Amino acid sequence: MGDNGRTTVGIVGASGYGGVQLVRMLCEHPKVDLVYLGGDSSAGKSYGDIYPHLAHQVNLTVEAVDIDTIASRCEVVFLGLPNGLACKIAPQLLDRGCLVLDLSADYRLTDMEVYKAWYGSADRADHEVLSKAVYGLPEIYRDRIPHTNLIACPGCYTTSSLLAISPLLKQGLIEPDTLIVDAKSGTSGGGRQGKINLLLAEADSSLAAYGVTRHRHTPELEQVCSDLAGHEVKLQFTPHLIPMVRGILATVYATLRDPGLVREDLRTIYSVFYQNSPWVRVLPNGIYPQTKWACGTNVCYLGLEVDARTNRVIVMSAIDNLIKGQAGQAIQCLNLLKGWEETLGLPKLAFYP
Amino acid sequence: MGDNGRTTVGIVGASGYGGVQLVRMLCEHPKVDLVYLGGDSSAGKSYGDIYPHLAHQVNLTVEAVDIDTIASRCEVVFLGLPNGLACKIAPQLLDRGCLVLDLSADYRLTDMEVYKAWYGSADRADHEVLSKAVYGLPEIYRDRIPHTNLIACPGCYTTSSLLAISPLLKQGLIEPDTLIVDAKSGTSGGGRQGKINLLLAEADSSLAAYGVTRHRHTPELEQVCSDLAGHEVKLQFTPHLIPMVRGILATVYATLRDPGLVREDLRTIYSVFYQNSPWVRVLPNGIYPQTKWACGTNVCYLGLEVDARTNRVIVMSAIDNLIKGQAGQAIQCLNLLKGWEETLGLPKLAFYP
Amino acid sequence: MGDNGRTTVGIVGASGYGGVQLVRMLCEHPKVDLVYLGGDSSAGKSYGDIYPHLAHQVNLTVEAVDIDTIASRCEVVFLGLPNGLACKIAPQLLDRGCLVLDLSADYRLTDMEVYKAWYGSADRADHEVLSKAVYGLPEIYRDRIPHTNLIACPGCYTTSSLLAISPLLKQGLIEPDTLIVDAKSGTSGGGRQGKINLLLAEADSSLAAYGVTRHRHTPELEQVCSDLAGHEVKLQFTPHLIPMVRGILATVYATLRDPGLVREDLRTIYSVFYQNSPWVRVLPNGIYPQTKWACGTNVCYLGLEVDARTNRVIVMSAIDNLIKGQAGQAIQCLNLLKGWEETLGLPKLAFYP
Amino acid sequence: MGDNGRTTVGIVGASGYGGVQLVRMLCEHPKVDLVYLGGDSSAGKSYGDIYPHLAHQVNLTVEAVDIDTIASRCEVVFLGLPNGLACKIAPQLLDRGCLVLDLSADYRLTDMEVYKAWYGSADRADHEVLSKAVYGLPEIYRDRIPHTNLIACPGCYTTSSLLAISPLLKQGLIEPDTLIVDAKSGTSGGGRQGKINLLLAEADSSLAAYGVTRHRHTPELEQVCSDLAGHEVKLQFTPHLIPMVRGILATVYATLRDPGLVREDLRTIYSVFYQNSPWVRVLPNGIYPQTKWACGTNVCYLGLEVDARTNRVIVMSAIDNLIKGQAGQAIQCLNLLKGWEETLGLPKLAFYP
Repeated sequence: MGDNGRTTVGIVGASGYGGVQLVRMLCEHPKVDLVYLGGDSSAGKSYGDIYPHLAHQVNLTVEAVDIDTIASRCEVVFLGLPNGLACKIAPQLLDRGCLVLDLSADYRLTDMEVYKAWYGSADRADHEVLSKAVYGLPEIYRDRIPHTNLIACPGCYTTSSLLAISPLLKQGLIEPDTLIVDAKSGTSGGGRQGKINLLLAEADSSLAAYGVTRHRHTPELEQVCSDLAGHEVKLQFTPHLIPMVRGILATVYATLRDPGLVREDLRTIYSVFYQNSPWVRVLPNGIYPQTKWACGTNVCYLGLEVDARTNRVIVMSAIDNLIKGQAGQAIQCLNLLKGWEETLGLPKLAFYP
Repeated sequence: MGDNGRTTVGIVGASGYGGVQLVRMLCEHPKVDLVYLGGDSSAGKSYGDIYPHLAHQVNLTVEAVDIDTIASRCEVVFLGLPNGLACKIAPQLLDRGCLVLDLSADYRLTDMEVYKAWYGSADRADHEVLSKAVYGLPEIYRDRIPHTNLIACPGCYTTSSLLAISPLLKQGLIEPDTLIVDAKSGTSGGGRQGKINLLLAEADSSLAAYGVTRHRHTPELEQVCSDLAGHEVKLQFTPHLIPMVRGILATVYATLRDPGLVREDLRTIYSVFYQNSPWVRVLPNGIYPQTKWACGTNVCYLGLEVDARTNRVIVMSAIDNLIKGQAGQAIQCLNLLKGWEETLGLPKLAFYP
Repeated sequence: MGDNGRTTVGIVGASGYGGVQLVRMLCEHPKVDLVYLGGDSSAGKSYGDIYPHLAHQVNLTVEAVDIDTIASRCEVVFLGLPNGLACKIAPQLLDRGCLVLDLSADYRLTDMEVYKAWYGSADRADHEVLSKAVYGLPEIYRDRIPHTNLIACPGCYTTSSLLAISPLLKQGLIEPDTLIVDAKSGTSGGGRQGKINLLLAEADSSLAAYGVTRHRHTPELEQVCSDLAGHEVKLQFTPHLIPMVRGILATVYATLRDPGLVREDLRTIYSVFYQNSPWVRVLPNGIYPQTKWACGTNVCYLGLEVDARTNRVIVMSAIDNLIKGQAGQAIQCLNLLKGWEETLGLPKLAFYP
Repeated sequence: MGDNGRTTVGIVGASGYGGVQLVRMLCEHPKVDLVYLGGDSSAGKSYGDIYPHLAHQVNLTVEAVDIDTIASRCEVVFLGLPNGLACKIAPQLLDRGCLVLDLSADYRLTDMEVYKAWYGSADRADHEVLSKAVYGLPEIYRDRIPHTNLIACPGCYTTSSLLAISPLLKQGLIEPDTLIVDAKSGTSGGGRQGKINLLLAEADSSLAAYGVTRHRHTPELEQVCSDLAGHEVKLQFTPHLIPMVRGILATVYATLRDPGLVREDLRTIYSVFYQNSPWVRVLPNGIYPQTKWACGTNVCYLGLEVDARTNRVIVMSAIDNLIKGQAGQAIQCLNLLKGWEETLGLPKLAFYP
């Protein structure tokens, strides 16, 4: 803890989009001091040189990643690294007593065989560390979070989809194998890297699916869905790239077990399920979520519809992919880890339009 | 026929987005002369005052709608009017010997009860005319088109969806009741009208579903699907508004009857189904359609995927909603009506990016 | 003052874009209670029905505009009405002791002849009220603001342009008659109204100037420039509509009086000029402002360049048109009126990207 | 010439945005056969693998660049390479009898000292070749084009700006040193390369100037302006990056020599100046060009305004940066080189919206 009674926090991988969200929000968080920014590719640069609009508020220089330095300065470390790197440094940080919140996929899947099948990675030596990680989706695993020192923050698609699906599975309302998630994301989800398909000239005024049948958020989704259903669930997940910067909309389809269920019932079930979840808003009947409402906030908006003609439920879920889908949710987990208010330091009102 | 041996053509409702697409393409069509533009709200205006970029090419003034005037000048009349108006003037034009291509919904549904249920309209007196209308989706009803004088041009969502679905149903490959169409459209589909939700300030950088369970293209889809399947089909259709001007992507999901079917089989089946359809392109394995490839053209691009894990087929279909989804398809129908090459006067190469 | 020691605040014209910005920021302002929303067109509607994403935070119903009701409940009233309406109700509110912040053009121009020439309006009876209004650009008129009860909040283009120009004129660095302002704005500046030219289908993927030589922010600009220069200034102002929702960039050109002035000098001059202005950031040499850095904040970013080849200064100024260009600046003025910190309750960190 | 009497054409550097525009338009040009595509980075790839939407129309494989191969197959060669490469291969192609149209900057500047100052390049050995190059802006140098075998195709900003400026300078209407060009471009002008600042996540919903006082199109502009004025002209040129794919709008400001000149005079002068230029459209009074009108076409739209208050002329010029600003203009030059109709094979009608 810092001299001022505030918690000292560092970010490894601070120059990407996840990193800059964390920086922005941690700067305004009332209980933390952001004291360290690490990243090998930007090492030595002032953070204000990377993001000039933050120069006035953030007076830190990005440092080369050194475990002992980090551990000596930070109680809490956020890892915003590409997949496959966090698992190399998280164990060392945990050994030195840090709380670790990992934004990558490294600790999300509990079954190493599933991990290898979807990520094509070789064996890892950190099974023991992995077994202690808690999947950082507070709305489902709120009770477990305070009891770990390693949070595996969920993927952005997974977050939006699971918040739509969970009440259905938990209450046994649907046939699990009929679950289809058609998800749409802004291009910031692709990260701050110079890929041709993420250029404005390519991605603007256009629209396409990608990773059909094989996107890596699928096994995450199935892991949590199976946990909720009490048996193995296989579902269909299709992501699309949308010509906008931020926001995810997940449109979820499933066949109802009880053909008599109506929209009002569903709204009651969702409202009860999320009654202690301050970041989920179940919309009134007939109102469908706009991603714009969620952008710049940690809120998830849910819209519900039942189709009596086809006996299906359709649930729409909108989040900001970089906040509730990534950095905001990590801070929400930090709040729970530290026993603070779950809403502390997180933005709740979108600018509109 | 005009003195020059070219077919004389008029457009009623020329100032909307459907109208301006027709004007633009008919101007470059080698076998027609555009001789009449009608529309009550713009009557008296030079077309170049409405669309200044066309002033150099189009030297016509919009006229108040008068049936006798139209019939005296035009062999062929395109109707680009709001729903419920075409059925008032089409019968009179047909009586006077015109060929009529209606871009509205008035003649799309063959069952008047279904029409009333979805459009909420009162009884119509033109049952006999309706019974002669042919649904103008050439890839399915190519043979019927030359034998009518009234074409009911399909909706934009319907076109993109049906081109994705038809081979599946025709070949009996899927369980029809598992059909889900998750469709995404640019905002030009909402027409040239000052609606708040279509403002750039509202629709840009955002994304939402609308008309969930009750969009009016649903009964059109079901009508043709039922025709192809040989029995009644009910499907799920969900449209979304995308922050872009033009283009539709329909993502279609269905459960396969034969779990052994692979992507290569599907590609063969689609290629054969569309072998005589010059405007459909079945993409190679692993390539998914970008709406941008279709924009400014009459082409429909289809991408195919099979998921062995879930036993589902996923078909993606991209069109320009205003061309293959509306005005281009109407001209394609005109080509067939007149016995011309199906590709005549229609754009086939997109600008990219 | 409310029972809790907080200042009671109302908004007349709360449903437009200026209104919703005010609502959003006043909800988070630590010294005010938002107690009244007025508007005739939305009267009777819950605010959450107009903006569903705010339903959770704003529990107010829009009321028909009644002066006595407003004055009985509100110490401070923001007027977010179309031009020509504020001047009808501001005098009555002032009579009843309210502080009034008007976001329209009604009280911006001190010379009624100029007002009539540019706004085409008939004579007004409220000359005395007008003479007490202070132009609410704190960076220039900070000292006058606490001594009035009527603030004429500046136009969005005017704000961005004047913050770029003022140090040049105040220090006599340029030939005033060479001033050219080429300004670019997102479409939200056009308001929440169903105009064809503001549709996404029209304004996206396109770009054009409008109001060339005759935009109504011109006389406002000239009034303040003349005040700063000490003599009449006539300048060129050209606005453009940019395919984005929020943000203004003003690019200002002027010929230097002293050909020896270099960029470093200019940076010093600007830094000194704005040393007590917490909302203006003068960027380092070679860094030019992105509107995105300002969006969602009350910050103005200024970039400076000197061209020794042409002996011109080029100043670029980026703001959020709806915050520093409108609602945020009004709250900044309220802070000054009430003697609070100038930065109170206003957002300073943009989300990026 | 090919066996069919058509001219054989090749493109070196076919995979970038300039290249794909050329491919698209040359495929539809009635007098040429596209027989060769070259490019080292894409060598060996089928063109349809790079641009799947063209696979149906373009059955060519990109080949490694070999001068003798090119010369043996192609009468005409378009070079779509980064700056500094064309000057290495153009001399060899010319030696072998090819007509060369270079889209880079290598042959645009006639004064090698100016070239070195702005491009920072070392001495070049091809002075003699350079001296024969004609600047390929047909509206100004139409008569010279047929008499060369090497066309230096102008930059995109230069084209839009010069078409706005030329009549003013040619007629001596303005003070040349007051010329300011404030230009705005879509991001496709930055090319098909993975640069961070061109990502949709960075460039969308934002706006900024770049290269202020030092963009390399400045000396091109000044070279032609000086040629037209008959004396050296120095002007101000400021480019901006706009959140859209295609299109440039140049807004040009200059002080009039004759304060009595009115808008109608100007329109007459421009109409006469461009009376033999089929690709320039001078808009009616009060109509300002939208870039969208030009997109997908080789047309330049010009809007004119005179401000009697400030004694300035404002000219707005809209083009498609990749067509009239690049590939289309190159084909226009080819038409002139070969004595064909200047409009042959070039698109003239935009899709709208």
